Amino acid sequence: MPAAKLFFDADILIKKAVKMNLPDDAVRKALKGRIFSGEISVAAFGKAAWTMAKAACDELGARIKRGVVITKYGHSQGAIPGMEIVEAGHPVPDANTIAGTEKALALAASMDEKDELLLLISGGGSALFEKPLPPLTLDDIVAVNKALLASGADIVEINMIRKRLSSVKAGRFALACAPAKVLAIVLSDVLGDRLDSIASGPASPDLSTTDDALNVARKYKLPLGDMISYLAKETPKSLSNVETVITGSVRTLCKSAADIAGEMGYKPYILCSDMNCEAREAGRLAAAFARQIATGDGAFHRPCALILGGETVVHVRGAGKGGRNQEVALAAAEGIAGLNDIAVFSFGSDGSDGPTDAAGGIVDGSTAHNLNARGMKLLEYLENNDAYNALKAVDSLIITGPTGTNVNDLTVILAL
Amino acid sequence: MPAAKLFFDADILIKKAVKMNLPDDAVRKALKGRIFSGEISVAAFGKAAWTMAKAACDELGARIKRGVVITKYGHSQGAIPGMEIVEAGHPVPDANTIAGTEKALALAASMDEKDELLLLISGGGSALFEKPLPPLTLDDIVAVNKALLASGADIVEINMIRKRLSSVKAGRFALACAPAKVLAIVLSDVLGDRLDSIASGPASPDLSTTDDALNVARKYKLPLGDMISYLAKETPKSLSNVETVITGSVRTLCKSAADIAGEMGYKPYILCSDMNCEAREAGRLAAAFARQIATGDGAFHRPCALILGGETVVHVRGAGKGGRNQEVALAAAEGIAGLNDIAVFSFGSDGSDGPTDAAGGIVDGSTAHNLNARGMKLLEYLENNDAYNALKAVDSLIITGPTGTNVNDLTVILAL
Repeated sequence: MPAAKLFFDADILIKKAVKMNLPDDAVRKALKGRIFSGEISVAAFGKAAWTMAKAACDELGARIKRGVVITKYGHSQGAIPGMEIVEAGHPVPDANTIAGTEKALALAASMDEKDELLLLISGGGSALFEKPLPPLTLDDIVAVNKALLASGADIVEINMIRKRLSSVKAGRFALACAPAKVLAIVLSDVLGDRLDSIASGPASPDLSTTDDALNVARKYKLPLGDMISYLAKETPKSLSNVETVITGSVRTLCKSAADIAGEMGYKPYILCSDMNCEAREAGRLAAAFARQIATGDGAFHRPCALILGGETVVHVRGAGKGGRNQEVALAAAEGIAGLNDIAVFSFGSDGSDGPTDAAGGIVDGSTAHNLNARGMKLLEYLENNDAYNALKAVDSLIITGPTGTNVNDLTVILAL
Repeated sequence: MPAAKLFFDADILIKKAVKMNLPDDAVRKALKGRIFSGEISVAAFGKAAWTMAKAACDELGARIKRGVVITKYGHSQGAIPGMEIVEAGHPVPDANTIAGTEKALALAASMDEKDELLLLISGGGSALFEKPLPPLTLDDIVAVNKALLASGADIVEINMIRKRLSSVKAGRFALACAPAKVLAIVLSDVLGDRLDSIASGPASPDLSTTDDALNVARKYKLPLGDMISYLAKETPKSLSNVETVITGSVRTLCKSAADIAGEMGYKPYILCSDMNCEAREAGRLAAAFARQIATGDGAFHRPCALILGGETVVHVRGAGKGGRNQEVALAAAEGIAGLNDIAVFSFGSDGSDGPTDAAGGIVDGSTAHNLNARGMKLLEYLENNDAYNALKAVDSLIITGPTGTNVNDLTVILAL
């Protein structure tokens, strides 16, 4: 357990930062002061679709006439007046996905230039919002996916092909809504907030061209057969009827954390918001920053909060229990051993880190010693990807339960 | 090749920062304004021993009466008046090591309280300055070393045993000099500048005790035989006759880089000075910082220089050619692809990165594209530990030749 004040401050910071990035708060923030001239329809896709649609209806009331909500099984919390709610498969689309998406396309087709569509997008939208271009079927898409994954193509190349087989991805849904205006409110779970990546960009112009897609098919000799003709159908390169607001993302999470830390008296520094390196190495580098703070030299002076947003990765080698945030924390614990009044913590904003009941971990200069006193070798637990059991033994897990949002992770170095 | 101005500025920064941390400059800086009351003797050990001794003699002239210099084969650059110069084995000590160390011990024994010893320590000193406690021989020490390495003991535990078999390590040389005063001037190649680690701390009190050492021997069932008695001889726990000045280290290298960057108009930020994580992950995180700068948000604003000192590690998996600094740069190149007016460079201050003729690498937003245009897959080169050939193909190696100093590495993110 870190020094009491650091621990309490970290707890406040985590709770407040998450609260400021909940889907409903995010939707309210995005709608604040906004004026709608026409009739408003709603289309919401993703794991937070229900919460976002509910917030929009609460906020705009009778201005909203109707809508379609597609979310993951078990993620609807009940009826919302005027909304058709569809639960569907995730991460693998199923018949309900297609049925829900067809309802949304019907809604799109029914709108005219006086209408406005509120498009609420959250993580998982890529699987939850899909209808292959007719006469393609879900089975066709599954087969192509398999061939793509086996081909050696990279993820950018894979998406170039995938998008072109869909009637809603890569801006095509927004095109289907025209001439109605589309206001897309996006809760992003994609690092760097690339709009063409979040939920496969249903309202985002596509950056890749027909030539790009055909080149990929040739390069990897993809067995597309007749489907090759779909690659030749161009995707929208500009969409004049769309306005997009990213209302929640790891970037806003970083800013929330910085604001809260500042209010608590720590000088905040946002170092990055799309950290994507190996978890344990991020922990080692975070510890190097902590040691630099401890020297009194360098760019950062106490009291301060160094904020790193993103989503690290773990290449699993061991058989233990843990998650990327717990590995960041445990690795940092080794590097800050003996430092006074500095804590490092890392957590997933969804409250769930790896296959555990923890959101992450929090360590300080005494953590390594406390493990050692129990005869536990920190590096062995790290090597075995068993951060959960190491942190649990020294009361250093962060447990929040499911938070209702998903805007990646935060790592914070907090120094009194 | 990065944008011309960034490239030229990086070149200036590298050359000036290295120059400010050359052993001779470092010795001059440490001696500046210092008053010696008695007769001065010199003992210099390490790869930079000759250069440091020469600088001391140039600076203090006739005040220096005599001295012993022990350096690596090929590292003497000729006679220095009054100095006995010994070249010896590195990294494995040999008969010359013992002979040179005996000369130094004789010098120590000949001094009285009016005398002063200038002890000049640089990297490699641990191997170049050694005499086993009689009647132990070099062969005994080699045998113990082997047993230690096979035992599973960690490096701290290994050093606890090693030191106690030596007549000069762990403060014992300084003790041999008493009552003469010792001024130790240290050019550090050890992260964190732990004095008991640099050259095994000939003038530094030992932190470990007899009990610690005996516990290690028991814990790993070391086959020490009669040698166990050496562990019971206590090492000095305080040394009243020693003053130590760390005159060059990666910390001073970071400060030099910050000063130079500041003079060139970049706001400098020293993030850390003992980075010790995996090289490619350091590159990935450096790229995340660069992307944050590019967003215009966050802690750092253009023009700026983010400075990370230390020594990353490479776990070799491929069969290519490279070094840790080249891997940092190549990994960063992927993450900064497309960014304008930002370069990332990383170099070893000794001018030698891995088994290559390069000191490191420098990349910018065009590097990944330039590789791609040559049909070279950046990630494949990285995976094959072949950063040298990737960077060479796009003219992104940093070549300085041997610099004459060795104070670890610098990674810099330079943004116009």
